[in-house]
Amino acid sequence: MYLATYEYDNRQTIGLLAENQKHIIPLNAAEQYYLGQNTLPAAMLDLIRQGDAAFDTVRSIAGKFTARKQPSLLLPVDSVRLKAPIPRPAKNIFCVGKNYAEHAMEFDKTKDPAAAIPQYPVIFTKPPTTVTGPDDPVSSHSGVTGALDYEVELAVIIGKQGCSIAQENAMDHVFGFTILNDVTARDLQSRHLQWFLGKSLDTFAPMGPYLVHKSAVADPGCLDVCCKINGEIRQQANTRSFIFDIPTLISTISAGITLEPGDIISTGTPAGVGAGFIPPKFLQPGDLMECSISGLGTLRNKIV
Amino acid sequence: MYLATYEYDNRQTIGLLAENQKHIIPLNAAEQYYLGQNTLPAAMLDLIRQGDAAFDTVRSIAGKFTARKQPSLLLPVDSVRLKAPIPRPAKNIFCVGKNYAEHAMEFDKTKDPAAAIPQYPVIFTKPPTTVTGPDDPVSSHSGVTGALDYEVELAVIIGKQGCSIAQENAMDHVFGFTILNDVTARDLQSRHLQWFLGKSLDTFAPMGPYLVHKSAVADPGCLDVCCKINGEIRQQANTRSFIFDIPTLISTISAGITLEPGDIISTGTPAGVGAGFIPPKFLQPGDLMECSISGLGTLRNKIV
Repeated sequence: MYLATYEYDNRQTIGLLAENQKHIIPLNAAEQYYLGQNTLPAAMLDLIRQGDAAFDTVRSIAGKFTARKQPSLLLPVDSVRLKAPIPRPAKNIFCVGKNYAEHAMEFDKTKDPAAAIPQYPVIFTKPPTTVTGPDDPVSSHSGVTGALDYEVELAVIIGKQGCSIAQENAMDHVFGFTILNDVTARDLQSRHLQWFLGKSLDTFAPMGPYLVHKSAVADPGCLDVCCKINGEIRQQANTRSFIFDIPTLISTISAGITLEPGDIISTGTPAGVGAGFIPPKFLQPGDLMECSISGLGTLRNKIV
Repeated sequence: MYLATYEYDNRQTIGLLAENQKHIIPLNAAEQYYLGQNTLPAAMLDLIRQGDAAFDTVRSIAGKFTARKQPSLLLPVDSVRLKAPIPRPAKNIFCVGKNYAEHAMEFDKTKDPAAAIPQYPVIFTKPPTTVTGPDDPVSSHSGVTGALDYEVELAVIIGKQGCSIAQENAMDHVFGFTILNDVTARDLQSRHLQWFLGKSLDTFAPMGPYLVHKSAVADPGCLDVCCKINGEIRQQANTRSFIFDIPTLISTISAGITLEPGDIISTGTPAGVGAGFIPPKFLQPGDLMECSISGLGTLRNKIV
């Protein structure tokens, strides 16, 4: 089940990607058509907050659509403007630093794994103002940074509120997955000591293209992750190389922090970022970033 | 002008502190009574977002109340439950680390000011789930941390959206001020490398008691700041000792991040935190933290 937030006819709403991946089924219209009711919200965050009952309605619409297609409901994907699945999160995005050993090593001058690889998850955040759509431009902020970098990441969307979540129950609290590009200004990241500022400039979190429900992801711990810059592969890894897997991250964060529906945890990026090259390969205006994860699609964002 | 968010009769709304500081004037009822209209919202965040027109209405109500008091409107302060002025911010709180030289030094083992005092503002965040009221308990999270600490801070509330705000215009973007206790789990703060996790446990941001409009604060760069633990003064300083003043902080953060109405910037804490003592004086269940800033009131929170 692939959910989308999109703009069509100057209205922002949510839809379901049809099986052919070429059409969007508008959820509000389809609910009216197939179920003769109007219970679903127009915003993804509200859908997630409504919990299992709302998702059962979505599932039921998908089933009825498969059994009895109604072409007049369909919108060609290229006729809509896809937005980030959650265009305005209700709090900062939780982000994980150094969650792939090779990436941790590419930043460590000593090249000593014992020093480079964290023993506990490293967590920082990006504010809601960083979020931008899967095809939207990313600002170079050229007056502020001269060291713009990319970071493809698997993002986990929380579905169910919880605190002190045990690892064995962690996946019950997950709604689904999407791709996040944790765009970073390396100079600000180091100059301001804490990473927050260098991670948080406007448009520094392209997200999408879809929110893929967990039922459509067989094993989030075994997904290929790839980032190309202008067609050249820079990052290529698999989430099985996580230092801290998703249950560990959820359990660590929620040990003292209540996780809420719609919260986003971005799980960290693999080796191959621009800062890891000698000399560094930072992004320039005009560069195209393409972030893909198996089964989740591709984010395509140009630096402007 | 002292604004409050409070609960009365199981309803949460906003009010104005009367001049005697012993009564609250409910803003919605007072607008109806004095102006015969109902334009003000019930939530502080909405009031701030409505901008100058809404604040002019509040000012007009205050003026009319002074001229023609209506006792039936008044609620004794001790009959209401004060909440944090913004009980649920729309994003994480921006927090400043090491913004008083003496505090930066108390954490530095080398005792070398050149190494200890940051050259650029250090920014991290606390999620909305940390926010709690000015008289509410703070959880010891004793299963998660054994190094609980206090940090009294002046918090700046943004009133007007802006990006790339020049220092000379920064105060135009400020709505007002309040007190924030940046409660911290020191062990988590260092174990997880980035400070976020140790700063972000539920109830780790008591805030209030009032949102004091900037018109009532002659010089936010000259305020006494004090924190007592069980009556013993631990922190005592003045905001004139800031390393980075408020205009510098607003200009630095907004250089690449759009600041929005209702955003909160907590400006850092002075020397005297528990971790600075040898041996450290960490908080225990039952301890009472009292954080005061001249003209802004006192936050009183017990560790449970």
